[in-house]
Amino acid sequence: MKKIDIAILGLGTVGGGTYQVIEREREQIAKKEGFELNVKKVLALDYSVPIPDEKKAKDIEEIVNDPDIKIVVELIGGKTVAKKFILAALKAGKTVVSANKELIANCWQELQDAAMETGAGFYFEASVGGGIPILRSVQESLQANTIRSLSAIINGTTNYILTNMEDNGSDFDVVLKEAQQLGYAEADPTSDIEAFDSMYKLSILSSLAFGVHIPIDHIHREGITRITGLDMQLAHELGMTIKLLAIAKKDGDTVEARVHPTMIPLSHPLANVKGVFNSIFMNGSAVGDVMFYGRGAGDFPTASAVVSDIIYAVNADGKHKYAPYIGKDDPNVIFNTNWTSSYYLRFSVADKPGVLSAITGIMGKYNVGIASVIQKGTGSDDVPLIFVTYDTKEEDMNAALKEICLLDAVNEVSSCIRVEA
Amino acid sequence: MKKIDIAILGLGTVGGGTYQVIEREREQIAKKEGFELNVKKVLALDYSVPIPDEKKAKDIEEIVNDPDIKIVVELIGGKTVAKKFILAALKAGKTVVSANKELIANCWQELQDAAMETGAGFYFEASVGGGIPILRSVQESLQANTIRSLSAIINGTTNYILTNMEDNGSDFDVVLKEAQQLGYAEADPTSDIEAFDSMYKLSILSSLAFGVHIPIDHIHREGITRITGLDMQLAHELGMTIKLLAIAKKDGDTVEARVHPTMIPLSHPLANVKGVFNSIFMNGSAVGDVMFYGRGAGDFPTASAVVSDIIYAVNADGKHKYAPYIGKDDPNVIFNTNWTSSYYLRFSVADKPGVLSAITGIMGKYNVGIASVIQKGTGSDDVPLIFVTYDTKEEDMNAALKEICLLDAVNEVSSCIRVEA
Repeated sequence: MKKIDIAILGLGTVGGGTYQVIEREREQIAKKEGFELNVKKVLALDYSVPIPDEKKAKDIEEIVNDPDIKIVVELIGGKTVAKKFILAALKAGKTVVSANKELIANCWQELQDAAMETGAGFYFEASVGGGIPILRSVQESLQANTIRSLSAIINGTTNYILTNMEDNGSDFDVVLKEAQQLGYAEADPTSDIEAFDSMYKLSILSSLAFGVHIPIDHIHREGITRITGLDMQLAHELGMTIKLLAIAKKDGDTVEARVHPTMIPLSHPLANVKGVFNSIFMNGSAVGDVMFYGRGAGDFPTASAVVSDIIYAVNADGKHKYAPYIGKDDPNVIFNTNWTSSYYLRFSVADKPGVLSAITGIMGKYNVGIASVIQKGTGSDDVPLIFVTYDTKEEDMNAALKEICLLDAVNEVSSCIRVEA
Repeated sequence: MKKIDIAILGLGTVGGGTYQVIEREREQIAKKEGFELNVKKVLALDYSVPIPDEKKAKDIEEIVNDPDIKIVVELIGGKTVAKKFILAALKAGKTVVSANKELIANCWQELQDAAMETGAGFYFEASVGGGIPILRSVQESLQANTIRSLSAIINGTTNYILTNMEDNGSDFDVVLKEAQQLGYAEADPTSDIEAFDSMYKLSILSSLAFGVHIPIDHIHREGITRITGLDMQLAHELGMTIKLLAIAKKDGDTVEARVHPTMIPLSHPLANVKGVFNSIFMNGSAVGDVMFYGRGAGDFPTASAVVSDIIYAVNADGKHKYAPYIGKDDPNVIFNTNWTSSYYLRFSVADKPGVLSAITGIMGKYNVGIASVIQKGTGSDDVPLIFVTYDTKEEDMNAALKEICLLDAVNEVSSCIRVEA
């Protein structure tokens, strides 16, 4: 039986998982695919699983110069060493499989150009949605569709935090600490909670879905740090919950892409995606609504996608597909930032006569229609006043909020969360 | 740009949808894939969409003998003409794309052998789950996994009926008539409501997922005709709902495959799959739980899968993959029919002293543990008595029911529905 030699760079959680999945599933993969996967070399600073000494490479050259190794799996992460090693492998004509969303979102064109130059493959299913087969589905199953919109929970850490806030009524800081203790959030959680991670993934996913490059600097990004237990409780009173959604829409040449906390009805399919699970909801011109759900992170789920890419690359037999439209920004594409959505607004106000009238007056001036109001008056100087608006243009909302903030009776805009149906 | 000539056989709902999707999406497909799809010929008895006269073929020979036509799309359905035409096309070396679950479930080996003989491709994503990319995901995204179990809602008609019974408290017959009027159920609904359709689809899906042939005669099949409004109401009282689930499990060489009405907790991901939507829930050794959701039928959703297969086949560039393990039944595989599950049982009994004791006595004798009882006594000769059991072996349950039926006070076993967690 044909044997495929591969090398793994980085043996942390996903690297270790990938090594183990290849060992465990070797036989059934061989039976179905007709070849055997063999990890010939591993290059790592630290080893999360035991590796025979003869498989440990001393440097990247040992791998790049080994003619037996056809596929290099990069699971180091980050943008420096990982990039250098990937480019070295591609330049040597070796196909690269990577889960590195940050690097790909930032340097897709450069990496793909390097791959195309030598005809090597460049695969990254594991970079979005962990084990969920979303990128391959977009490329190999939904080709007949013009994708019109997608909304997705693609960060497990923030979904874990929001689910816990929802289920236990806790505040953000408390749940974040718990999540860190349990290993669901990193010591420095910035990339997750400030939605950088979701932004990278949305750039990759929406670019493939829409067939035009959606660079990260055209993605509006807001994290979940300002969401409070009170907001979550009020969301439930309104029949909704709060999720960190990555949203992208394309209408003709106009594209919008944004990651932000979003209120959705409890009946929305994404409302039931709990804990560390991820889910991607899409609408295509032929297929209509379609949804994918699964584990968005972790050793074995992510390894499932990595090993799938390896097998897929072997079967491509040297004829790799690329997404060349990513390479050059399409001059026809208009990135809309003045999108439309309805809003949940929570103000802290002094409970005085005329406050409601003043605020709603300003809203009216900027075409902000009010769908519902919750006023929990206590006669104090700091009471919450909650609105849910009808569809409003982003710029109108910003202008209205700016003016409302100037009102004497308004202490602050405590929350401003977009609502999607 | 390269032009790919195809022929469509059958222009009913899905055939018409396929023709239209190819027309509408030609440009974006060409942009992403680098070739243009062209429907050169259509062979049909009746035309659901307008077709230029020069595209109308007079017989199958005109298509089979046309060297330009590389791909033949069979959307006639049934096992006679469709089979003849598919075999003719495959023997002429033309790749076939089909949505014909009944034919494939019955004659997979013969059709695949014919394809392998000439090296033609044979694709059928649309045969399971309509527009949901499930077969391709199993084959091209979950290869690193040993699939251990799957449970799926893969028949839209029955799910529409059960959802309506759930939402409106109606009985089966009433909702079926409504569904027929709305076009969601056929004039002869047997294939759907008696679960033949789900059985065909489960055979195809589980064979690909497990990598061994699961023939339809090893699939236990029960339809939904005996489900009553009362059962649905009682399910809700128990925190559950009733779905027609296609279930398959593999543990080593032991396989079980069954389609039957199933009670599942309202918190189960499949419980929220409503109306004509389909969903497939799977567990893989690496990926863990993963779920796919979308429209399982209809013109455009099914066409999405058909056109995807066409594009995929073109990209395979003559190197088509097969599932050769389907061809021969694996002698090592043991088909288990004495599976384990818990049960919801509803008896009609005469409300007399000693009935409960007699029934539970028999249950005890056959190791049927009782998780809960609902007794709605009215002192009459026909009162419902409901049990939910713990995990029980199928054979034990059958033996117990047989003996319970012989009790004087027991009028009938009104319902016996398996429960899955």
